[in-house]
This record gives sequence, C-alpha cells and structure tokens, in this order.
Amino acid sequence: MNVVVGVDIGASTIKLGAFSTFGQLQYKWSIKTNVANNGEAIASDIATSIKSEMRPGEKLLSIGVGVPGFVPVKSGVVHGAVNVGWKEYNVKQRIERLTNASVFVNNDANLAALGEYWQGAGQQSESLLLVTLGTGVGGGIIHRGEIINGPNGTGGEIGHVTIKPGGRLCTCNRRGCLEEYIGTKGFANTLHDKLSKPRNVSTELEWNDSVKSIVKAAESGDSLALEIIDECSYYLALALANAVTLINPNKVLIGGGISAAGDSLFQPIRKHFSRFSLLETDPEAFIVPAKLGNEAGIYGAAKLALQSSQRRD
Amino acid sequence: MNVVVGVDIGASTIKLGAFSTFGQLQYKWSIKTNVANNGEAIASDIATSIKSEMRPGEKLLSIGVGVPGFVPVKSGVVHGAVNVGWKEYNVKQRIERLTNASVFVNNDANLAALGEYWQGAGQQSESLLLVTLGTGVGGGIIHRGEIINGPNGTGGEIGHVTIKPGGRLCTCNRRGCLEEYIGTKGFANTLHDKLSKPRNVSTELEWNDSVKSIVKAAESGDSLALEIIDECSYYLALALANAVTLINPNKVLIGGGISAAGDSLFQPIRKHFSRFSLLETDPEAFIVPAKLGNEAGIYGAAKLALQSSQRRD
Repeated sequence: MNVVVGVDIGASTIKLGAFSTFGQLQYKWSIKTNVANNGEAIASDIATSIKSEMRPGEKLLSIGVGVPGFVPVKSGVVHGAVNVGWKEYNVKQRIERLTNASVFVNNDANLAALGEYWQGAGQQSESLLLVTLGTGVGGGIIHRGEIINGPNGTGGEIGHVTIKPGGRLCTCNRRGCLEEYIGTKGFANTLHDKLSKPRNVSTELEWNDSVKSIVKAAESGDSLALEIIDECSYYLALALANAVTLINPNKVLIGGGISAAGDSLFQPIRKHFSRFSLLETDPEAFIVPAKLGNEAGIYGAAKLALQSSQRRD
Repeated sequence: MNVVVGVDIGASTIKLGAFSTFGQLQYKWSIKTNVANNGEAIASDIATSIKSEMRPGEKLLSIGVGVPGFVPVKSGVVHGAVNVGWKEYNVKQRIERLTNASVFVNNDANLAALGEYWQGAGQQSESLLLVTLGTGVGGGIIHRGEIINGPNGTGGEIGHVTIKPGGRLCTCNRRGCLEEYIGTKGFANTLHDKLSKPRNVSTELEWNDSVKSIVKAAESGDSLALEIIDECSYYLALALANAVTLINPNKVLIGGGISAAGDSLFQPIRKHFSRFSLLETDPEAFIVPAKLGNEAGIYGAAKLALQSSQRRD
C-alpha cells in the first residue's frame, strides 16, 4: 500500500500521521521535539520515526511537513521558526536525503487550513480563511484548493495584522498586532489591563486566570469577564471583517484551544463582525468552528504531500 | 483574424478595445454611457458598437466586460453598480443574446489588476495587489494569473477595509473605510478637516483645492499640504501593509489619476508602509506605479475573455 506521511512540528511535540493515497488516516503517533542545538536533531528524528512506524508492505510516496515559521515559495527554506530553534533551515533537503522521499514544507497554520479544507469544516468551500487561536494567533488562506503563501511565506498571517496602530508591543517588534489582543496571550494582556485599572464593580477574576476561567466567569455574569471577552472579540472581528472584504472567502473557520469556548466567544465575534463587514453575510453560517482539532496539521501536511507530488508527475 | 473585445463600463464613458488572440491591442474606441432608465440601453449600445467597429474578416471570439459593481462568482449577475443605474443586472446574458459571443464579467478594478498583471507593471509577478486611487478607492488581487473575486464578488475591495473604527461615514453606511481617507474624496475630506480647525501656520490651500493643488503646495513647502499628504498616505499604508501581511503578493501597484503625483505621494506611503509591514520588503521596488493608465480595464477585460474561453474549450 502506498502512503504519504503528514508531519506537524510544534515547539514541544511533533505529530505524525500516515495516510492512504485516498486520504484516509491509517495510523498516527507523536514524538518529542528536540530543540537542543538549534533543533538540529529534528529532521533525523522525523526520518527515523517514520521508518520505524511504517508497516510491512507500505511504500512511502512523499512527506508533508508543517513548521511554526515562514516558508517562502521559491526557496522552500524555513525562516524564523525560532520556537524549534531554526533561524534559516532547509528541512526539506534534510528529510529528503534521509528518507529518499519527496518532502513538501509549509507553515503550520497554512497546513491546518488546508487540512480543514480537505476533510474538516471547510469541505466544499471554494475558499476559506482559518484563524487559529493558541498562545498567539495563526492563520491560513485556501483558494481553489491551494494555500496562498507568497514570496515571503507570510500568507494568512492574520495574527500580525495591525488592528490598533501604536497599541501593545508585539514579539515581532511592531505595535498593535492582532495576536496581542486575542489568543491566550491576548486574553492575558487584556485581563491585566483591566485588573490594573480602578473599577466600580467587583470581579472574581485574578491576575493568573486562564481563558477558560474568564469564559466561565462571563457565563456566570461577571461583568469584567464579559468586558474582556467583548474587547478581545471586537479586535478579532475587525481583523476578520477586513480580511473578508479583501479576499471574500466562502467561509471563516476559527480553531485552536480557545475556540472550544463556543457561543460565549462566537456570539460577540459575530456581533462585531456584522458591524465591520462590507456585505450582508450570515455570520451564523459563515464564521464557524474548525473541526479537526489538533489533527488539522497532519491532515493538511498529508494533503500538501499528495497534491504536490501529483503536480510533479 | 480572430479577436476578443475588452469592455470597461464607467459612469460616463464605456471604453472598448479589440485584441488579437495573442494579446495585441488592434484598435480601441469609446462610447458614452447611457445611464437613463436604470442603464437599460448599455448592453445593446455595447453590442451595436462592437458590430459596427469590427473590421471585415474578423471573427469575434468572446467579450470581457468590466463593471463598477460586485460580480459574485456563481451567479455572474452584477450587484450594486449604482453609478450606471444597475441594482441587479445580468449584463452577461444580455450581451450574449445580442452578439452570440461568450461574455465574461467582473469588477472593473479586478480587471484593471488583471490587465496590469498581463501587460502592465505586474508582468512576471506570481501575485499582485492593485489599488486604484480615483474618486473612491478600488482594488484587485491576482493570484497565479487569476482574479480573487469570491462568493460576494468583493475580492480586492481594499477601499472598504475599515482603517479607522468609528471614523468618517462612508457611502456604504459604515464608518472608517479607507476610501474616505485617500482618493479624491479622501483628500477633500482631509483638506476640509484641516481647514476647519484652528492652526498656527498659514497655508495657500483653499476649500475647493484639488489633489493636484495639494501636491503642488506640498512640493513648494506648504506645511498644511504636507500634513494632508502624510495623513492620507498613513491610512493607505496601514491598509496596504495589512493586506500584504495577509496575502503576501509579489507586488503592490498603485494606479488611478492621483498616482501621477509620483514621489510626493509614493515616498510617504513607503515610509509608513515600512512601519506597519511584517517583514522587511523593499518598498522602493515593491510598491510601484501601475503602467496601463485608463487602458488597464480593457486589457484586463480582454485577458478575462481569453482565459475564460480557453478554460471552457
């Protein structure tokens, strides 16, 4: 049986999945990410792990790899995947040499979007925008089945859209990026802003509360928690509405751990989105939760491997 | 000889051009736009005009049409082209019945972008974003040779991206759209704002001054004129940088009458762009003037006709 393997490299774990050429996930596993020595062992760890997990009689056709960094279209060299120790790293070449399989690399959020398009909440959408709310904010755009990546590989990077000029300082050294206003970090920033200011109403929230606690407090009527969710949703909705005006996708998917908050988060997002969006869309149907959870990355990586090797035939 | 005709419908003039199938403009002409009775004569005016202008021995293969409105991908029915009298209008069907040629319709700014990609400043770009600065602000995105249009046909509508929440009221009934801050209307708004406020320095500017006068005044050192250009450029740069982060095109083209202002406008745009853009790009090479002037529309319309009829073969 011919298989492709989808790989999703994260800062602490590398997820892997073997797929049939018809797109069925056969089996999956994970290994730890060894970030020591600028992540120099990662490529060989992946190659070794694939070899040892593959079943007798299987033939490895190609490998798709998602990385937490930018992958410019032309060079294919990973840029700025600092979480796994790579500044500039040709992971494609390394894994190809170790496995003799063709390797195709792209940004992890772009691949999550491709995975959702393929077998998740984006099926039958000609185009979609996926936003992943994790610690930071990632994103990916799929147009006619293909990732919009671009010469610098920043395609889909909605987390670094400026939604408040002169606002909070971002890790990218600019100010007012979306990911300082929503995501685990964005919620914490907003919580700390609110707690630092004098206020009239009491709150059960404390400095180190998680997004989950904020959502729970909001659901039991805590007004500060409601304010925080409203403010974070406002900025996300502004960025989403502007992206929708510009690229007009068929669907907007919201994924990442925080999206589990459900209506407590989706309702305010949809409310603010309606205010900023150019045309009457139906945000109920239009902005929907992603489906594949933390498997989206391996699905997208496998799809990339399948579509890229087909293209080369 | 086989020809395709590109048509660009504007509020006062309809431009037309006959192209060889190799893409060479053979001859061009224009007719007046008859907006009477909700623009009901426009389709037949176009059909009649093409028939009478075509040379003996020429065979009409197909027609591309640019309209000042949205054209949703699926229906192909023009939506909201109020400047020419159409609320909802199936111009494709009308012209096809009158000419027996295949007709392909898209938004005029999208087609200007396609024209620039094909034979203008965007050649050899895998992707580009065109912004046209006219009375309002239009835009178009080309990705791998195709227009990003979307289910509602708003693809590329950078003029209606919200760059100042709660800002100036736009004709679309929302607040803070880019086109209230740059373009002929945006410059006038900014001029009026500045003239209405008390100020310390003298200025040669007056209430009804054109963009040309503002640029001229700035070039001779008028500090209010410089302030106006800086402010208008700031908002355009913010919208451009966010669009570039999101779709990461190979090039940004600026077209429309105002773009003739040259460096007086491009320098401040590039300065602010550098501040807001995610990655180090070279704005000198990256943000460039469009080339085809007011012929971009007929070029793009012809290209649409060529590529769409090829796809149907």
